[in-house]
Amino acid sequence: MQYEWIENGGVTSPRGWLAGAAYANIKKYGSEPRFDVGLLYSEVRAAAAGVFTTSRVCGAPVSVSKEHLSDGHAQGLVVNSGCSNVAMGARGLSDARRMTELAAGKFGVLANDVLVGSTGVIGRPLPMADIQLAIENIELSSAGGEAFARAIMTTDTVPKSRALSFEIDGRRHCIGGVAKGAGMAHPNMATVFCFLTSDFSADPAWLRQTLKSVADVSLNMLDIDMDTSTSDCMLVLANGAAGGQPIDAHHPAASQVEAALRAVSIELTRDLARDGEGAKTLIEATVSGAKTLDDARRAARTIVSSPLVKTMVTGRDANLGRLMMALGRSGAELEVDKISIWLGDVCAFQRGEPTQVAYDLISATMAGSEVVFRADLGLGRHSATAWGCDLTEGYVRINADYTT
Amino acid sequence: MQYEWIENGGVTSPRGWLAGAAYANIKKYGSEPRFDVGLLYSEVRAAAAGVFTTSRVCGAPVSVSKEHLSDGHAQGLVVNSGCSNVAMGARGLSDARRMTELAAGKFGVLANDVLVGSTGVIGRPLPMADIQLAIENIELSSAGGEAFARAIMTTDTVPKSRALSFEIDGRRHCIGGVAKGAGMAHPNMATVFCFLTSDFSADPAWLRQTLKSVADVSLNMLDIDMDTSTSDCMLVLANGAAGGQPIDAHHPAASQVEAALRAVSIELTRDLARDGEGAKTLIEATVSGAKTLDDARRAARTIVSSPLVKTMVTGRDANLGRLMMALGRSGAELEVDKISIWLGDVCAFQRGEPTQVAYDLISATMAGSEVVFRADLGLGRHSATAWGCDLTEGYVRINADYTT
Repeated sequence: MQYEWIENGGVTSPRGWLAGAAYANIKKYGSEPRFDVGLLYSEVRAAAAGVFTTSRVCGAPVSVSKEHLSDGHAQGLVVNSGCSNVAMGARGLSDARRMTELAAGKFGVLANDVLVGSTGVIGRPLPMADIQLAIENIELSSAGGEAFARAIMTTDTVPKSRALSFEIDGRRHCIGGVAKGAGMAHPNMATVFCFLTSDFSADPAWLRQTLKSVADVSLNMLDIDMDTSTSDCMLVLANGAAGGQPIDAHHPAASQVEAALRAVSIELTRDLARDGEGAKTLIEATVSGAKTLDDARRAARTIVSSPLVKTMVTGRDANLGRLMMALGRSGAELEVDKISIWLGDVCAFQRGEPTQVAYDLISATMAGSEVVFRADLGLGRHSATAWGCDLTEGYVRINADYTT
Repeated sequence: MQYEWIENGGVTSPRGWLAGAAYANIKKYGSEPRFDVGLLYSEVRAAAAGVFTTSRVCGAPVSVSKEHLSDGHAQGLVVNSGCSNVAMGARGLSDARRMTELAAGKFGVLANDVLVGSTGVIGRPLPMADIQLAIENIELSSAGGEAFARAIMTTDTVPKSRALSFEIDGRRHCIGGVAKGAGMAHPNMATVFCFLTSDFSADPAWLRQTLKSVADVSLNMLDIDMDTSTSDCMLVLANGAAGGQPIDAHHPAASQVEAALRAVSIELTRDLARDGEGAKTLIEATVSGAKTLDDARRAARTIVSSPLVKTMVTGRDANLGRLMMALGRSGAELEVDKISIWLGDVCAFQRGEPTQVAYDLISATMAGSEVVFRADLGLGRHSATAWGCDLTEGYVRINADYTT
């Protein structure tokens, strides 16, 4: 499909979207305060859908957002970083609700139309008085997307925003997105935070179904460290400000809009992988020739999540047998002597046996900031792509003293 | 049960067992050659059983050993480290068979009574001429257990041998064991190498069943880095040299012998966890109050395998909310507000909410070389214990240049 990326675009690129952020004393990194509370607001009520963590210890904000999404609509979002408000009992739930009420007061909408997300340390209380003050002080503007992107960062080193535009029936539409999450990021759920805004009009049921499909090929194919967050949340909101008929399954542009949502989500997924805690290299793995789609996804995710594949990339070490190991434990149906493996264009295993390729060439092919693996299982027609990053001493340093 | 640990005991502690090792030019660590081929031999044919990797890319040696175990007996074992002989096609299978033939010639037994294990880099050929010479040169002796233990080491920093003795009907019996594996070690299979020798007499069917039960509470509860080896193999051989009736399910001492096998296996499991690649701390996690045994095992294993729990221990960081995260993603049935979590004797979460315990006390409780976590799920009667280790910058360094 035809779409154009918007330079420096983000969640406020679509029509009718405002955002802003403030510091509420939650996140403490050295002496420098950083934004830790953010607001995102649509001037009109939007169709909305979400996918959430599959963790059985899910955060109070996840419960509240699910509840507020039950009518398929929302108009705003309040987020904080530095404290996840997870495992805080009744207080956690009441604090999450209170955040939606405070934001609703600011926006002039019902609390039921406000979603909430919190990310950070588990088992610590939110400083609600500071958060209230911060929400009151935030100035919402169409230039606030960058501040909002910063307000959701924890160990992320850069904010991640993307936006693109496309046409339906001669009308210009736009999708913006923002994401965070450099650790505790593991596939098989809606991973970390990813919020998509847009100005097309949408049927909530279609939006919900489409978000699930998009998550399955983007954020659900990300792995940074195999640990699943309690606060994962991917949201999409479509406010219709650009006009046009609501998109539903029968709309002729439905697949076009889905492709646009997928494009933004995949770029954000790659941004997250590239900025994984301590990461220096983005790893992309495509598995083809799988008997089932589930096998393809499982195998691709296992490659990018394997500590031994990751450290092989860290060391640019010509040890591609580790991909065989990863495939072997992935659970996908396999026959060893049908598996071929490539690094970039270099074939390292052909039908189960090593090729004569020189180890030096393999190491040299890993030189860049992106490493692309491909494995063909030779059993069927299904394929999938997953993204991850290398495992460096930096990951250990970051996580050995995250709270202190 | 009553048993005595044998100081500096190992696989040659039981009666009738000989071992030895040599260097065959396979393993190259700096300038210093180390043993990389080992032989283990029983003077009489022994009942034997094995459990093997669940990887779908399993090594040729695994296939050959399974085949040779089909009659429930064996008399010897040939092993090498530095090269796993995995993903080598028809050549791999023929090399593995050849190793059993060479060892059988040395022992003067049938090749079908010799088992084989190879561990090391995947997708590289074995230097068969060097291996043949090494096997010819090995001197077998009852003092050879230590050399054998060294011959199976890859990134292990110390050899791991254990032995204990116990009495049945006034007869002294002995079980010896050796293990290796500091990385590519993930539960849910027979992990890494673990070979148990003994001099009691056993019914092969009972031995097979018992080994499976023992593996499930020892090596299958070990996790070092979530990566499953293609070469995992746990074997037990009982040669009957101490006399007495064969142990089977109806023998009055069956549960006593099983307990002895379990004791050796658990000690070796702890030895492996303590020597995990780059590890400085052994982590033990016990989960109680689970609804099912599977839930308890899953939850305990997820705690010790979580990169974020591991790095928390590395940094002695008071961030026990990460145990909540790990439990949440473990797949075990949970209700957050019934979960309590302890570090040693310090309760950090009580029925889902953080206690008032000072972070300094938590950090101080992690000061030693062993950290013990306990979680009660408050849902049922099942419990399980798992072992792992911290994740340090050393793990990354070791695995970033393993082959080069």
